[in-house]
Amino acid sequence: MQEQKDVAIVGSGLVGSLLAIFLRKRGHKVTVFDRRPDVRKVEFSGRSINLAMSNRGWRALREVGIEDEIRKLALPLDKRAMHVEGQEVYFQKYGEDGEAIYSISRGILNRKMIDLAENAGAVFRFEEKVWDVDMQNARLYTGESEKSPWQEYQFDLIFGADGAFSRIRHKMQRQSRFNYSQHFIDVGYKELTILPNEDGSHKLDNSSFHIWPRGEFMLIAMPNLNGSFTCTLFLPFEGDISFESIKTEKDADAFFESYFPDIKGEISNLKKEFFKNPTSAMVTIKCFPWSYYDKITLVGDSAHAIVPFYGQGMNAGFEDIYVLDQKMEKYGNDWQQIFEEYQTERKPNGDAIAELSYRNFLEMSSKTADPMFLLRKKIEKKFASDHPELWTPLYSRVTFSDKAYSEALQIGDRQRAIMDEIMEMPDIAKNWNSPQVQNRIIDLLKE
Amino acid sequence: MQEQKDVAIVGSGLVGSLLAIFLRKRGHKVTVFDRRPDVRKVEFSGRSINLAMSNRGWRALREVGIEDEIRKLALPLDKRAMHVEGQEVYFQKYGEDGEAIYSISRGILNRKMIDLAENAGAVFRFEEKVWDVDMQNARLYTGESEKSPWQEYQFDLIFGADGAFSRIRHKMQRQSRFNYSQHFIDVGYKELTILPNEDGSHKLDNSSFHIWPRGEFMLIAMPNLNGSFTCTLFLPFEGDISFESIKTEKDADAFFESYFPDIKGEISNLKKEFFKNPTSAMVTIKCFPWSYYDKITLVGDSAHAIVPFYGQGMNAGFEDIYVLDQKMEKYGNDWQQIFEEYQTERKPNGDAIAELSYRNFLEMSSKTADPMFLLRKKIEKKFASDHPELWTPLYSRVTFSDKAYSEALQIGDRQRAIMDEIMEMPDIAKNWNSPQVQNRIIDLLKE
Repeated sequence: MQEQKDVAIVGSGLVGSLLAIFLRKRGHKVTVFDRRPDVRKVEFSGRSINLAMSNRGWRALREVGIEDEIRKLALPLDKRAMHVEGQEVYFQKYGEDGEAIYSISRGILNRKMIDLAENAGAVFRFEEKVWDVDMQNARLYTGESEKSPWQEYQFDLIFGADGAFSRIRHKMQRQSRFNYSQHFIDVGYKELTILPNEDGSHKLDNSSFHIWPRGEFMLIAMPNLNGSFTCTLFLPFEGDISFESIKTEKDADAFFESYFPDIKGEISNLKKEFFKNPTSAMVTIKCFPWSYYDKITLVGDSAHAIVPFYGQGMNAGFEDIYVLDQKMEKYGNDWQQIFEEYQTERKPNGDAIAELSYRNFLEMSSKTADPMFLLRKKIEKKFASDHPELWTPLYSRVTFSDKAYSEALQIGDRQRAIMDEIMEMPDIAKNWNSPQVQNRIIDLLKE
Repeated sequence: MQEQKDVAIVGSGLVGSLLAIFLRKRGHKVTVFDRRPDVRKVEFSGRSINLAMSNRGWRALREVGIEDEIRKLALPLDKRAMHVEGQEVYFQKYGEDGEAIYSISRGILNRKMIDLAENAGAVFRFEEKVWDVDMQNARLYTGESEKSPWQEYQFDLIFGADGAFSRIRHKMQRQSRFNYSQHFIDVGYKELTILPNEDGSHKLDNSSFHIWPRGEFMLIAMPNLNGSFTCTLFLPFEGDISFESIKTEKDADAFFESYFPDIKGEISNLKKEFFKNPTSAMVTIKCFPWSYYDKITLVGDSAHAIVPFYGQGMNAGFEDIYVLDQKMEKYGNDWQQIFEEYQTERKPNGDAIAELSYRNFLEMSSKTADPMFLLRKKIEKKFASDHPELWTPLYSRVTFSDKAYSEALQIGDRQRAIMDEIMEMPDIAKNWNSPQVQNRIIDLLKE
């Protein structure tokens, strides 16, 4: 058993709420601060991308006994539905039979997680803005504004779960020898909705993750329990076809009609939301160290914000908490050791999933419609299915396993180099299914 | 002629002072803020590395008519003096006859630059701390502390010349789509001094840049006008031989005696300063954009802090000002265009000199004592001297030319690839001076 600590968590998002549940289970006193209002009492922001819960996320929820509750909010998606221009929709299975990612609305999940954390005894202080932290003494300062009088709180431990633009990390960043980077991509996103049919059913297949790849941009759609789909339009901020270039209703009509003819019936709603919902930016954030002695540590996006193209942001954050809990189990009251080993183990994994997510951004938008890329995937898939002991596809390693992300990246790079050679084989498009190809892969794997 | 603007410069360092002189020359009203006291009225901090003024720096000073004044403060160094363990000192010329870098004390230069800027009519407000900037309205807020009452200043333009830990950039960083990174190296530095002889003369050759390369660490020394040398000890923060491991006077004695026997007579002073002077960290900072519309731009370290191993930090900052002035000449009152073209031109050069400086960190400490590395340099030098039209060494391109840093990096990479091949030639150590080697380089240059 750990000695009871008085703990602050800054941020009541998914990772902060989950951490609250874990810490309550270990008997700590938990206060969660959030500068925003209680998400259970406000309308959703219209700037969310649906979540894809996968293996790592479920494992963390299971550990703390709330997996079943959350499953009720989720829809399993076992395949991609590809809406390629000028072709019929086709499907790509994600993994083995029974393997799926789970679509959940961020807002609905967050409300539920806060309920569960409150039921477990965590205290939430919404609309209370943290402006400063005294790192050496684990004190938080909150108030109306940076210049207003502040309230001081004394804690034993402080967790920064306050997201990509973390105030806690912002303070840590002023330390000497704190490494930090924030890198925005030139593509933004906007949430849109495909409404349910009148009978409440889904308008598209509801066990698929839908993608309309269009080269420089793409639309995706994930089903909700209420029959709607949450769509996300990823589009360059500037340029010929961009958020900047779509200024009028007429521009939007032309855009949706020419690029998304198979959801033409949805345009009036898509268009309305296009002008109502905000355009958001996407950023990769890396930093180190994540911890300050036995006082403070960062979890989730505040330590490693990533672009959303692998669907692993929440999963990586939940895995942080799972690992942190393992370290608590291992080191008891030695919080410095807990934080030290947590950050040492998680940092390379945070970097790896950041890299994989960034690569998937390139892959999903442009390559998923490229015949050579599809051929490559087909060869890989065939080989993996014939030789499962020799080849686990990268996507499965990331999504359906709990092996380290850094290992997935490393093995994925090796597989890519092998497939680069395979794709150079003469007449590969014709011979892809031949024994020569499989034997060549086996030889290359031995090198 | 430009319309007169009311301009604030934040930071009275070298780049801020130079900018003040340029802007006064164009008739603008200039106020320079600095949170520190007037450097002319305080003792130096003991945390400085002597500067090496080279071509780019001189060009900027010449443009504004202060080159001759500054030359009086500088000592030309036309070569490296290599103090390799177990060998006699040997010398490596930097460039052609007449080419040299110029050793100047940072503190002495800064005092002079502020004098010159004041004489030109700039107003300096020392010990006035800028805490916030209203970017849209070009307003600065200063005060005793972040929480004290603030004074508001309204300007037309604001320049952030406030160094690696720039407050202006700190504010810009909170914008969406602002890319930023700070990366610290694991080596720190400490200023030390070799005192003059009793007759005021230098104890070591005073037209050389002295280097004691020791693998993981190194000592350098640059002469001052008063007969002393400003030394810089570069040493890992942690590890077997590190700042952390040298705890007592006895540790320091053992360290200096075993690694720097040829300056044994200096140990008592080196040791005294070792424990008196602070240990400083080194950081590479990159960001973009550097400007905010027609209101704000960053110059020098605030835009592109680099590690000091190429001696180009100040030179790069002075070149920023030179380029900015060219854009003012070109675009007159269109400040948005001035800032836009300035940042577009300078950003790749800032990135390039950051990369080159980081590589030189690796090269200076470890490779300068490696025989194969020295052979490579010898071959390059011979070829450059026989074929000056075909080969300008990278160091000369960076230090003695005013061609873009980005071009130097690119051509340097090509030269490196060529030399990699040359070093693979059979018996290269024996045949290095043969026509075959030179012909092979010529062939490779044609590829």
